[in-house]
Order: sequence, then structure tokens, then C-alpha cells
Amino acid sequence: MAKILITYYSRGGNTREMAKIIESAARQVAQTEVTCQEIDQVKVDDLLLYDAIIIGTPVYYGTMAAEIKKLIDDSVCHHSKLAGKIGGAFASSGNVGGGNETAIMDIIKAQLIHGMIIPGSAQGDHYGPVSIGKPDDRAMAQCQKFGKLIAKLTVKMFG
Amino acid sequence: MAKILITYYSRGGNTREMAKIIESAARQVAQTEVTCQEIDQVKVDDLLLYDAIIIGTPVYYGTMAAEIKKLIDDSVCHHSKLAGKIGGAFASSGNVGGGNETAIMDIIKAQLIHGMIIPGSAQGDHYGPVSIGKPDDRAMAQCQKFGKLIAKLTVKMFG
Amino acid sequence: MAKILITYYSRGGNTREMAKIIESAARQVAQTEVTCQEIDQVKVDDLLLYDAIIIGTPVYYGTMAAEIKKLIDDSVCHHSKLAGKIGGAFASSGNVGGGNETAIMDIIKAQLIHGMIIPGSAQGDHYGPVSIGKPDDRAMAQCQKFGKLIAKLTVKMFG
Amino acid sequence: MAKILITYYSRGGNTREMAKIIESAARQVAQTEVTCQEIDQVKVDDLLLYDAIIIGTPVYYGTMAAEIKKLIDDSVCHHSKLAGKIGGAFASSGNVGGGNETAIMDIIKAQLIHGMIIPGSAQGDHYGPVSIGKPDDRAMAQCQKFGKLIAKLTVKMFG
Repeated sequence: MAKILITYYSRGGNTREMAKIIESAARQVAQTEVTCQEIDQVKVDDLLLYDAIIIGTPVYYGTMAAEIKKLIDDSVCHHSKLAGKIGGAFASSGNVGGGNETAIMDIIKAQLIHGMIIPGSAQGDHYGPVSIGKPDDRAMAQCQKFGKLIAKLTVKMFG
Repeated sequence: MAKILITYYSRGGNTREMAKIIESAARQVAQTEVTCQEIDQVKVDDLLLYDAIIIGTPVYYGTMAAEIKKLIDDSVCHHSKLAGKIGGAFASSGNVGGGNETAIMDIIKAQLIHGMIIPGSAQGDHYGPVSIGKPDDRAMAQCQKFGKLIAKLTVKMFG
Repeated sequence: MAKILITYYSRGGNTREMAKIIESAARQVAQTEVTCQEIDQVKVDDLLLYDAIIIGTPVYYGTMAAEIKKLIDDSVCHHSKLAGKIGGAFASSGNVGGGNETAIMDIIKAQLIHGMIIPGSAQGDHYGPVSIGKPDDRAMAQCQKFGKLIAKLTVKMFG
Repeated sequence: MAKILITYYSRGGNTREMAKIIESAARQVAQTEVTCQEIDQVKVDDLLLYDAIIIGTPVYYGTMAAEIKKLIDDSVCHHSKLAGKIGGAFASSGNVGGGNETAIMDIIKAQLIHGMIIPGSAQGDHYGPVSIGKPDDRAMAQCQKFGKLIAKLTVKMFG
């Protein structure tokens, strides 16, 4: 089984809603075992248990929330042990042009530094799924596509 | 008079339309002299003539078009002579999450390296105006706000 | 008097040492009043008191430390009130290619979103001063140049 | 055989030297067929022939040279056909803090948008190998490590 963690921070619920759609899409791919948890439920040692780690954030000042960054900073105790795992990110913002893309890239940078493997998507949102406020049909479709993409690659490499 | 250059590359016309709105808004600020030109009309020596240089691009693979990058690369012959001028950027893309933010930041990086001064906006699109396809009311309002912001700062510092 | 805040997070002391050099250089510019404080000493309301806010960070996973991000997230309570102030950033990392540039750009993104004004430098490190480990002569010279650049612009605009 | 393309732009020769070291290291991995070409020798249709596409650039104004961007822009005619291939990037700059990291990330952004898969490295330079001027021992070791990393993953996925 390919083990996938989707973790997120959410105050208003938009990022959580994206996480749930990604979770549901990833579960539809055979051979996956998917966990979806708020970031404060994830212990840094848990990161070792998964083949893929997907992180979602609301956009605060153009990048991830401090709560997300805290777990990433703490994960230094396992530096190099996450290498080879699959990574990916998603984000929700208040507005178009509101920092979604840069927030996702900042999470991807951290995953690359951990030695993780990041799949892009030629058809999806450029760096990972984005939502402007509450996920609309477009954002929901992006989350579904992303969940399947991550799950299929994780199964291919770890299943 | 504060001299402002707005230059852009545009195939489909969306970035041009943004440029025209920014131009019109900047002209409404007293004491400004505004030039709006396609990038292939701008000679590298022209860059020395302006107090502010605003650059617009469609998003190609997450960043500025090669045509824009070409002028920026050529501008190395005037390196350090653009220092202290005002900079700014805007972009149009096909989709939400389609690279607008990263394209704008890549132009801003080049302007910072030239020693230019970049004003942010607490109310506008996060890094500069973005349009998804043809500018809608939201994008047009962002362009107007941006044109005035740039013009006012240029007048304050150079007028 | 132009009021400048230099704030930083530092565990090993390298970022602190950069901060002290920037502080010293900024003080040498006439008409400045310079405060240099660790990030945990800065209350979010303090940010309103300064004309320039310079932020330094060690690089953790390609971007600013969570401790820095926390203050930035908290500063949302004053959103739009920091507009027009001068911003800038500096960073120290363990290695060349170790994330200094991206960490600085991530702080600059936050400052732009606050509506702050960011001066680049045609001669300095590309986005702000960087140090690889303990500041060497090169890094110290960059910090001095940066401190003066920020101070002079702040005096020009607010002095 | 896993087919790997290393392509680069180089005026002074530093980026070329990095490319040659990466080429040599990749060749040492069994089951690889490695091509190393200047960017102007690569036809856009050639991109379809490889399982991995690695791109190197000198840093011009914080990002890739216009010559590199030109090929990337032209590659839109094969959009979605490069999906699933391995990507990666490297860069040389004149100075520490001279834009290497941001140039590499800008190439990675383009590769992600093509749907390519980007492996990070927990021990290497944060986003890809960087050289300050002519590659020194540190930079050469980074290039070797990177060449092997890319080659091994390409063999694993396509060999």
C-alpha cells in the first residue's frame, strides 16, 4: 500500500475543504492508504511513516502560515530521512493574485530541500491546486486531479 | 515632470489592455509624463530616460516572455545607471493559478538587481496587477489603482 | 529623525552579527534613530513606530524561520497601516546555495503585501545581504552597504 | 536505456563546465545514455526524445538567460507531452547571493508546468548545483552528486 499524508492548516475552512477533496480523490486510486489531518495533529515523527506528504495552507503574506512553517522547521530532526518521498502543496487565498502560487512554491522549496520528489502537472493549476475563497467547481476539479496525480505516482513508486 | 515608461509584450492583447489602463491612470496624476510602448519599440538606451519603468508580460511557463527577458538581459550595459528608479510589474495568464504571481515577482527580482525601488500595495493584487484572460472589472480596477500608486510615488520622488 | 527597526531571529549568532553591522552602518547616516531587537522582543504594535522595518533570518528550509513568520502573521492586525514604510531583508545560511536568496525574497514578498517600499541594490547581494555561516569580510561589507542604503532612503523619504 | 539531456547556455564557460561534470557523473550510472548540448543545438522536437531534461544557465538578473527562456517558450508546441519526464536545473553566477537559487527555481517552475517530476536533494545545494564563478571543488562535488541523483532516478523510472 502507498501511504499518503495530507496535512493542512485552516481557520475559515477553505483549505480544509480542499484537503478533503484531495483525500477523497487519492482514496479512489487503488493501493492507497490516505490520512488527512490538521497540522497540529501531526507529530514530526509521523512524517517518517508516509510515502507522500501533501501540505495545504491558507496564504498569509504571500507564503505558508507560521503553523505550517513550525512543523517544517521541527522536521529538521529527520533531515535526509524524508528523501525520495513524494511532495506537493495546495493553498487558498482571499483573492485572485493573492499569493496562492508563491505560497505553494515556498512549501515545494522546503520539500525539495528534504530531498522529496515533486510532480508537476501540465493541465492543472501551475504549481498545485489553488482556491480563491471557498472552493468553486474549478478549484474542486483541480483538487481532484491533483489527488489522483499524487496517488498514482506514489503507487507507481512505492506501491 | 515625473517620467514613466510602461512597456509590455502582448500577443493576444490582454497584457496590452492592462498596459493601456495603467497608462491612463498614471496620466491622471498631475506632473506625470507617461509613455506606453511595446517591448520591441523600446531601445535599451531609452531606459535611462525614465524615472519609473513598469513592465507587463503574458505568463509563459511561470515567468516573463523571452522577449521581455531579452531587453532585461541587454540592459546590463546600463547596470547601476537605473538604480533609484521606481519599478513595478503586471501580468496576464490563461487561468487562475496560472503563474501570474511568479511572473511578476521574476520581473521585480530583475528590477531590484538594477537597484530600482519597488512599491508594494496593501490593497491591490499581492505583487502587481494580474488578469485572468481579458481584463474584467476586478483586473481593470487593479490596473487603475496600480497606475496611480506608481505615478504618485514617482512624482513624490522625482517630480 | 528617520526611525529604523532592525529585527532578527538568531540561534547560532550569525544573523545577529549581521544585524549589528547593519545597525552600526545605519547609525552612521545622519538623522537616523536605529533600534535593533530580537524578534521576540518586538511587539506587533511596535511596527507602527518605525519608518523602515528590516528583517533578518537564518534560512530554515529555504525560507524564514517560523518565529519570523509568526510576527508577520500577527501583523495582519495592522494591515494597510505599514504601507509606504521602507522594507528590506537579510539572511544567513549554512552553505552556498543554501536558501539565502529565497528566504530574503519571501520576507520581501510579505513586505510588498503590507504596501512597503523595497529598495534594490545594483552593487550589493542581489536581494539583500547574505552570509554563509559567520559573516566574513565580504558579508560584512554587504551588511554595511545595505545599512547605509536603507538609512539614506529612509532619511530621504521620512527625515 | 534511460535517456538524459543536459542542455545549457554559457558565454564565459562556467555553466558549460558544470554541464560537463554533470554529464560525466550521469554517464557513470549504468543504463544511461547521456547527451550534453548547448541550448542553440537543441531543437524543440528533440525534447520529446529524452526521459530527463536538465537545464543549466548563467544568472542574468536573477533568472535564466533569455536564450534558455526562448527554448522554454517554444516548447509550448509540445505542451503535455513532456509530462512525467524528470527535470532539474543548475546555475552559475558572479557572486554569492548573486541569483543562483532564484534562477534554478525559475527553471524548475517551468518544468513543473510541463508536468515534469523534480527530485530534490537533502544533502546537495538546496535547489540544484550552484557555482560562484568557475566551479571550485565544492561546486564540482555538487555537480557530481546531482548528475548521479538525476541519472539514478531516471533509470529507476524509465530504465
